[in-house]
Amino acid sequence: MNAILEQINPSLLTSSVKGMGQSATLVINEISNRLLNEGKHIYKLGLGQSPFPVPETVVDALRYNAHEKDYLPVKGLQALREAVAEFHRIKDKVDAIPDMVMIGPGSKELLFLLQLCFKGDTIIVSPSWVSYLPQAKILDKKVRILHTSFSANYRLTPALFRNFCEKVSDYKPRIMIMNYPGNPDGLTYTTNELKEIAELARQNNIIILSDEIYGELDHNGKHLSIATYYPEGTIISSGISKWCGAGGWRLGTFTFPKNLNWLVDAMSAVASETYTSVSAPIQYAAVRAFKSGQEIEDYLWHCRRILSQIGNNIAQKLINAKVKTHLPTGGFYLFLDFEDFRDSLKRIGISNSTELCNHLLHEIGVAALPGVVFNRPAEELSMRIAYVDFDGTKALTASRSIALDKPLPPEFTKDWCGNVYSAIDAIVNWLAKID
Amino acid sequence: MNAILEQINPSLLTSSVKGMGQSATLVINEISNRLLNEGKHIYKLGLGQSPFPVPETVVDALRYNAHEKDYLPVKGLQALREAVAEFHRIKDKVDAIPDMVMIGPGSKELLFLLQLCFKGDTIIVSPSWVSYLPQAKILDKKVRILHTSFSANYRLTPALFRNFCEKVSDYKPRIMIMNYPGNPDGLTYTTNELKEIAELARQNNIIILSDEIYGELDHNGKHLSIATYYPEGTIISSGISKWCGAGGWRLGTFTFPKNLNWLVDAMSAVASETYTSVSAPIQYAAVRAFKSGQEIEDYLWHCRRILSQIGNNIAQKLINAKVKTHLPTGGFYLFLDFEDFRDSLKRIGISNSTELCNHLLHEIGVAALPGVVFNRPAEELSMRIAYVDFDGTKALTASRSIALDKPLPPEFTKDWCGNVYSAIDAIVNWLAKID
Repeated sequence: MNAILEQINPSLLTSSVKGMGQSATLVINEISNRLLNEGKHIYKLGLGQSPFPVPETVVDALRYNAHEKDYLPVKGLQALREAVAEFHRIKDKVDAIPDMVMIGPGSKELLFLLQLCFKGDTIIVSPSWVSYLPQAKILDKKVRILHTSFSANYRLTPALFRNFCEKVSDYKPRIMIMNYPGNPDGLTYTTNELKEIAELARQNNIIILSDEIYGELDHNGKHLSIATYYPEGTIISSGISKWCGAGGWRLGTFTFPKNLNWLVDAMSAVASETYTSVSAPIQYAAVRAFKSGQEIEDYLWHCRRILSQIGNNIAQKLINAKVKTHLPTGGFYLFLDFEDFRDSLKRIGISNSTELCNHLLHEIGVAALPGVVFNRPAEELSMRIAYVDFDGTKALTASRSIALDKPLPPEFTKDWCGNVYSAIDAIVNWLAKID
Repeated sequence: MNAILEQINPSLLTSSVKGMGQSATLVINEISNRLLNEGKHIYKLGLGQSPFPVPETVVDALRYNAHEKDYLPVKGLQALREAVAEFHRIKDKVDAIPDMVMIGPGSKELLFLLQLCFKGDTIIVSPSWVSYLPQAKILDKKVRILHTSFSANYRLTPALFRNFCEKVSDYKPRIMIMNYPGNPDGLTYTTNELKEIAELARQNNIIILSDEIYGELDHNGKHLSIATYYPEGTIISSGISKWCGAGGWRLGTFTFPKNLNWLVDAMSAVASETYTSVSAPIQYAAVRAFKSGQEIEDYLWHCRRILSQIGNNIAQKLINAKVKTHLPTGGFYLFLDFEDFRDSLKRIGISNSTELCNHLLHEIGVAALPGVVFNRPAEELSMRIAYVDFDGTKALTASRSIALDKPLPPEFTKDWCGNVYSAIDAIVNWLAKID
């Protein structure tokens, strides 16, 4: 064995990354694919990927711009930054300007740059998206987690937030990450909640990173941003991964208030030394996505109609079976709590969310993510399902054959998104069996 | 003024990014574009972007795969990793396997992940590419710079390397970054140099990050990788930005020796929490690029023939005018040293490379990058020119009309790449005037 094999070894990893695995949401996707390849039947409710195709007009824009080869400006293509700013001005009624928009290879990367550049602590509202905390760990950053509860609709209540602010009344710079419609819960905030949280954030100098990547998938098309009430302290995070079906394209956006230009400059400097800029053909195509228009509004309308019916139907089925969950208001997730089955689950060796998901995957082939990866207490019997295991292209085509002014027939999504229903039936039957 | 404007301010930046500007090579591009927009004539020898279009077969592959929307595996699309491994097996005669290939949004981002994950110091050979050092600074990493000299062809000589290894004989893990054909110098290593450096690296447990992004642009098509002599300790960095003209597409590759799998795992874990994976349509298209074949070999052949003629002609012009430089052997850069004009330059207020480049930009409209950003001593009167300011599409078409077995006519690149020659004439005339 030569010298390098002896002395260059895993002990030479930076301590903050030692023992770190890949992001849970990507791992479940790779495991599901492996089991599928082995010939097992798997309900893929793990990875939160939009089931719908990228709108044809946006795919056409990518084809049309395939030859674009120049390095684009670090902050993003000017035409795209204009389209994003206008998108937020129209949709969110905020005073967004192109100069304060930054384009990144996914909003996840932009969030990493934000946490890297901003010296203050990060506040996370749990259940929270899987990557917020690992990023902070990589960067050796201090994180405070605010745990919400099932009974409070998994919302950060103004009371909880006020209580936190009072306890940490010594001034420290902080960024709080909010995500609504929520991953993993599919729920959003009321106008009054947003107003009260905005006022508390303002009083306590807390910057809000408002992760609104599912905003356009509010099932009623009525997403409301906290930036409306806290424009000077809110960074809006968005992108084309969810509402535009283009997760694999990797393009996210941050829209900053004007007074945070120093933060944009610092993040751009780091971006220029790391990813440089987002893929040029993708940026040109994304202009088409953010410019919206009838073809995209129509696409969104159908996506929402389909997701809303599935989400409400399966949530009701689970509630009927005594699983604690809520009827969703946006996105494509439900967060389930099996607390009422704790004794029965314990009898078969399940006492935390990881064991719960392992059993479901190997016994009935349902891939889902355990609550613990969303920063819930390990012993909580919670998990996230993504109700996306269906052919979005076929479902969209079918929905387009039904008049816009009529609701979908009650059986519509059972016919077109049957796998999701079968997965829920499998869970319900499994629960009946063990109970 | 409200609270957040008072208390949330630039003092809240992480110390390692405070005061950091954007990457010099991107800044020069943005300044050049601004001056152009103001109506000034600018010779764009600043940004190192390939003048050639992406080969049509690769653009077609992007069009064909524009609808691909799934999140791809963190390490990269399997078919692409296979193509990259085969590319290096064939071109570099190394035992590359797909499992040890990692695809990133530019090799720059992969290098950042490498420096983030690997605990040891970084050794840089100067003149060196602009981003190696700022990345280390962002990560608070210790860096050793080995300065090469004009008289040694800006090569890391075995003697210089041996001397360094002896001085630091206490064992410490290290990564040394080598770049050849070189940016900013357009020069490469001889077989013997590579063999001797390989042996020293092996004896001293130094991992080589071999940045071979210009490998395919060796003007004779005879690039040789140090991995040939040091397979167990060399990471080969490559990508489609330079030889495939697709800088703006953002796709780079690292190919690791098998024993560094723990490093690939750690880098993949961080990638999964940051950029996730490279844009799917771009990865599908890159398979076509790395699979090579006659159409791409033909494209490369013409690119090399054109670049070689320009590089040699303008280097000779500069040498005749007493500028210190070398005839290039690859890539599209020359590194110039104006030491012999020090007294004349001093008389007009120029005593370092930054002042030199500012004068050239504002007096004769030549955009180039000062030696200092390539980690040369500040007082050295050096600068890099990228001889890329021409229409690569037209030049390629013209070259294709000339038989492959004949050299280009002497005036060929003067006719098709005139701007580059005019820029050099402008520099030469300016020197004559001030001398």
